[in-house]
Amino acid sequence: MSKRIAGPEIERLIQLLAKVPGLGPRSARRAALHLIKKKEQLFSPLTTAMAEALAKVRVCSVCGNVDTSDPCTICTDPRRESATLIVVEDVSDLWALERAAALNARYHVLGGTLSPLDGVGPDDLNIKGLVSRIAEGGVSEVILAVNATVEGQATAHYITDQLVGLEVRVTKLAHGVPVGGELDYLDEGTLAAALKSRTAF
Amino acid sequence: MSKRIAGPEIERLIQLLAKVPGLGPRSARRAALHLIKKKEQLFSPLTTAMAEALAKVRVCSVCGNVDTSDPCTICTDPRRESATLIVVEDVSDLWALERAAALNARYHVLGGTLSPLDGVGPDDLNIKGLVSRIAEGGVSEVILAVNATVEGQATAHYITDQLVGLEVRVTKLAHGVPVGGELDYLDEGTLAAALKSRTAF
Repeated sequence: MSKRIAGPEIERLIQLLAKVPGLGPRSARRAALHLIKKKEQLFSPLTTAMAEALAKVRVCSVCGNVDTSDPCTICTDPRRESATLIVVEDVSDLWALERAAALNARYHVLGGTLSPLDGVGPDDLNIKGLVSRIAEGGVSEVILAVNATVEGQATAHYITDQLVGLEVRVTKLAHGVPVGGELDYLDEGTLAAALKSRTAF
Repeated sequence: MSKRIAGPEIERLIQLLAKVPGLGPRSARRAALHLIKKKEQLFSPLTTAMAEALAKVRVCSVCGNVDTSDPCTICTDPRRESATLIVVEDVSDLWALERAAALNARYHVLGGTLSPLDGVGPDDLNIKGLVSRIAEGGVSEVILAVNATVEGQATAHYITDQLVGLEVRVTKLAHGVPVGGELDYLDEGTLAAALKSRTAF
């Protein structure tokens, strides 16, 4: 269809909305129309919120988290134990672990995993920052909360090697049956790991 | 979880993104993170596009469409036949019909349907504007492209009554089997309508 049905500003808005994960070309159109209809309730406040976040967002120089302050909210929170450091691949993993709210620890975001095929080496990740953070002292445990993929595990091994000689306990996440999961649907590797790591009932 | 994991600007961005249709609380979080990561490629241009659209968007005083100009792009397009007027409930219907690209006509957006239970009467819809548009002359056919719901049909009947005495042909959309649809999954009403309105092969 070459005919224009709306002004270029609306077409451009739809085009860009379609690039947001979770929205496709069709739902971007629907979202744009919804925004236009809810001009005062949603469109205007969302635009303001985006402009503010865009202006203020930065990467934390301590842990690699994204936030509107540097050091970030987590790094500056005095109620968090600084003795435990959770190492994650990505900010999304940090947010996921925070939702679990299981530990009151601090984080370190690597920014990816070692992947020689993609040309990602140790210098492309925030590993040196991690080692110097631990070398400064005060950290007694490092939890390697990397993904259970080949790259994630390779990265975990590399980090463990780098931490040899430092007074720190290195741990990893437990493998096992997801809470609420059905055994029937689980792969053999997970079931074997869950059996091997069985605990007293 | 009462602990804050990010600055208030990011939390507010996520809250507002979650109100966009197609995004929920979880996907809003993912979308916000994606925007923050693609700051230059997506976040910044999208924010600019939203601010521009927000500032310029208005309702067309002729047809009720939303656009960045008034009269809208469709009403001012000289290549469109002004003899055919397609009456729709909502701007989303207008956009859907435009995607079909079957007719090169102009539109009239009612802004809803008659619904006495919800307190929506003829004066709440853009019906007077439609009648005066047709009374001005130049329109030979009015296509009532309202939804095939009770309210839509009631609105169509009301409009037909209002147009009595005006020199205009009033038509409605055909009922039948959707293109690419399977008979097995269709309801009886649609199948009966498709049989009744059968055409020569």
